[in-house]
Amino acid sequence: MAQSTLDQVIALAKRRGFVYQAGEIYGGSRSAWDYGPLGVELKENIKREWWQTFVRSRGDMVGLDSSIILPKRVWEASGHVATFTDPLVESLHTHKRYRADHLIEAYVAKHGKEPENGLADIRDPETGQEGNWTEPQMFSGLMKTYLGPVDNEEGLHYLRPETAQGIFVNFNNVVTTARKKPPFGIGQIGKAFRNEITPGNFIFRTREFEQMEIEFFTAPEEAQQWFEHWVEACWQWFIDLGIREENMRRFDVPEEDRAHYSAGTIDMEYRFGFQGSEWGELMGVANRTDYDLGSHSKESGTDLKFFDQASGEHYTPYVIEPSFGLTRAMMAFLIDAFRIDQAPNTKGGVDERTVLSLHPRLAPVKAAVLPLSKKEELTPTAKELADTLRRRWNIDYDEAGAIGRRYRRQDEIGTPFCITVDFDTLEDKAVTIRERDTMSQERVALDNVEQYLTERLQGA
Amino acid sequence: MAQSTLDQVIALAKRRGFVYQAGEIYGGSRSAWDYGPLGVELKENIKREWWQTFVRSRGDMVGLDSSIILPKRVWEASGHVATFTDPLVESLHTHKRYRADHLIEAYVAKHGKEPENGLADIRDPETGQEGNWTEPQMFSGLMKTYLGPVDNEEGLHYLRPETAQGIFVNFNNVVTTARKKPPFGIGQIGKAFRNEITPGNFIFRTREFEQMEIEFFTAPEEAQQWFEHWVEACWQWFIDLGIREENMRRFDVPEEDRAHYSAGTIDMEYRFGFQGSEWGELMGVANRTDYDLGSHSKESGTDLKFFDQASGEHYTPYVIEPSFGLTRAMMAFLIDAFRIDQAPNTKGGVDERTVLSLHPRLAPVKAAVLPLSKKEELTPTAKELADTLRRRWNIDYDEAGAIGRRYRRQDEIGTPFCITVDFDTLEDKAVTIRERDTMSQERVALDNVEQYLTERLQGA
Repeated sequence: MAQSTLDQVIALAKRRGFVYQAGEIYGGSRSAWDYGPLGVELKENIKREWWQTFVRSRGDMVGLDSSIILPKRVWEASGHVATFTDPLVESLHTHKRYRADHLIEAYVAKHGKEPENGLADIRDPETGQEGNWTEPQMFSGLMKTYLGPVDNEEGLHYLRPETAQGIFVNFNNVVTTARKKPPFGIGQIGKAFRNEITPGNFIFRTREFEQMEIEFFTAPEEAQQWFEHWVEACWQWFIDLGIREENMRRFDVPEEDRAHYSAGTIDMEYRFGFQGSEWGELMGVANRTDYDLGSHSKESGTDLKFFDQASGEHYTPYVIEPSFGLTRAMMAFLIDAFRIDQAPNTKGGVDERTVLSLHPRLAPVKAAVLPLSKKEELTPTAKELADTLRRRWNIDYDEAGAIGRRYRRQDEIGTPFCITVDFDTLEDKAVTIRERDTMSQERVALDNVEQYLTERLQGA
Repeated sequence: MAQSTLDQVIALAKRRGFVYQAGEIYGGSRSAWDYGPLGVELKENIKREWWQTFVRSRGDMVGLDSSIILPKRVWEASGHVATFTDPLVESLHTHKRYRADHLIEAYVAKHGKEPENGLADIRDPETGQEGNWTEPQMFSGLMKTYLGPVDNEEGLHYLRPETAQGIFVNFNNVVTTARKKPPFGIGQIGKAFRNEITPGNFIFRTREFEQMEIEFFTAPEEAQQWFEHWVEACWQWFIDLGIREENMRRFDVPEEDRAHYSAGTIDMEYRFGFQGSEWGELMGVANRTDYDLGSHSKESGTDLKFFDQASGEHYTPYVIEPSFGLTRAMMAFLIDAFRIDQAPNTKGGVDERTVLSLHPRLAPVKAAVLPLSKKEELTPTAKELADTLRRRWNIDYDEAGAIGRRYRRQDEIGTPFCITVDFDTLEDKAVTIRERDTMSQERVALDNVEQYLTERLQGA
């Protein structure tokens, strides 16, 4: 059977060092992944694009970076201690635990309908035996830790399961120090942690993950209009960075499936191509109403209302929350950019070639400098060029192997331009620049390479 | 008594929204701080400078981003479970716990000598009573958490106390996928967590903090030379970004004070101006020898030796580790940039003015657009200019209050350029640009503002 695109992308990501299994030499972990030299650059580029688009370039947005660990009281007020729990069952065959709702979802994906007798109809996923399940027990998705010398209630803290709460508890601080008034928003990028029972699908669902979140504060009567604004703005961000429209869709989440705080949620789904269910949630925009600021006002005793000087009114702002999963976005960009096409080989025929047609601003390596041979005449010029370009971009330097093979290596990691230094370079002070997608080549004077890239890297 | 520079910088950082106390509305926490709109931009700029200088612009470096939570076995191998402990004593007056070594340090700082009878000579820091201390007990600085449904040994994981270990366990992965060979290094920026008993000195010592670390792998015989290289390179990075030489010094850490893995450590200290001890550690360069790769090879059973094809030899590389505290660097940049000078006022006299003379690449706001009045003739032009500049930089737009007061607000947060749109602008299509440090003003055509800033922001 041919490998799915998803499987090919995962294999490529592992082979080329975008992603490693965390703690691999100690047997690895399903719960987290590490990002290698290419992965960290891609991830950084996504973050920079997000920050530039949604925070720096907007007059109605500011940034924030709040703590990961917050006291229990914050999570009581947010509703997480009470409601951030999942129903867990244990298979009496293997004594392994599963989320009951995930088992049901998998059944529906496979059979196209709900199981008639609930869990009783669901077989053990590992052994295939007829299901023999314990009663579901609620299990907290919060990860806890203890600060201070003793593991007691006083020291009990939780790792944040979302970056959002750090924004809400700082609402007054930002209003005062940044002199902002609604409509305005606060953006944050950072890690969050959930004690997922069934992490999986590569970097799609992990216990440690990164979010890019916006909490946008509005007058209640303007909330719906801003909700629609943000749905469009988020959709457009993906399209502008190269995701194809046909691989994205909107899903209006029905009330019973929404988070406890939400009066309306639109999920953006991407066609990840998972087994069972092709589509997966990429990000979501939720109308959190005045739930969060209201709860924190009540629990903390600090008034988080906004005083509108124009109208003389105090009100608790509504919150529109566009919430992105960083590594889900990364996965979507990789899958969407993955192509297999044909490239001419040296024998006059064609070979299959794998290309990541990543947007130039996302590409982890912007250009590769390739001396045609390892001969010492070429090395100094090639190295000098690489060092010059490195002052502005992430640049590869590769002198190992046939030039065709080196092109393939760069195509596979999405490098937009390959710059070949050859023996003519010593005479004409020019290099050959090859473009990744079209494979077209152009002779460019050494002195103009930086300008050439500047024009074509679209602001990277 | 006049406020110290340190106190003034802390007050400014809080007042202007660089830094907030974490969880302030719930009574706050000594263990962590949140970074507001200006703080997050300054922190981001420091990270980008570091990454560009030490990772992207060097052919012998690559980046990585590894998990925060790692299984217990990693921390056993690294030596942290056994040795990352501090001696803790309890005051029998207040039942509060203190680190014994910190109490002694504070005594030495105050009295200029060690206490003759050890802890017995040290008074209770809170009540001032004669000391009455329990015997010191060793206490782990590691923060733990549990993955999976039950809090048991199997699920026990630790939050990393340093980013370094995530690099060591991925050594083979990077060598293979990025095709690197020593001498080469891996850089990483990320959060780390230590269960400090006595966090303090603002953002200097916190339980949750951010590191910027390099692990540089070399042949054993080249380790010393690379150690010296990195000491110079790190020193120069601070100088290039505006830290004054007289406020930095090197400290050759004596053997008994070094970490368990180090065969030599140079700390860079900065004159933070703390009460008691003026100097504090800003970053350190350590020669970790083959301790880490050796330990992980042994404990994991995976060979982390490097095979040198040229010599045909297998060897365990030595590691030179430059390790930076991000928020310590931020604090040093703020303190070093803080000035009080005199500025002309509208009455023909002079006023005191507070300026942050931050390097333009570090400044959180690159330019402020200030319409001379709120009159509607000026607003569209001013807003349009701000929106144009926002495509590239973080820009403030401020139309509230007298122009002199708005200049002061920008000086205080280190904005290099203030751009005033006045009534002449409507005629001559030009604006007045004021430079922060010299307060000199220049008339610049609207069409040339972007170019003007590009030239003066030194690559920001």
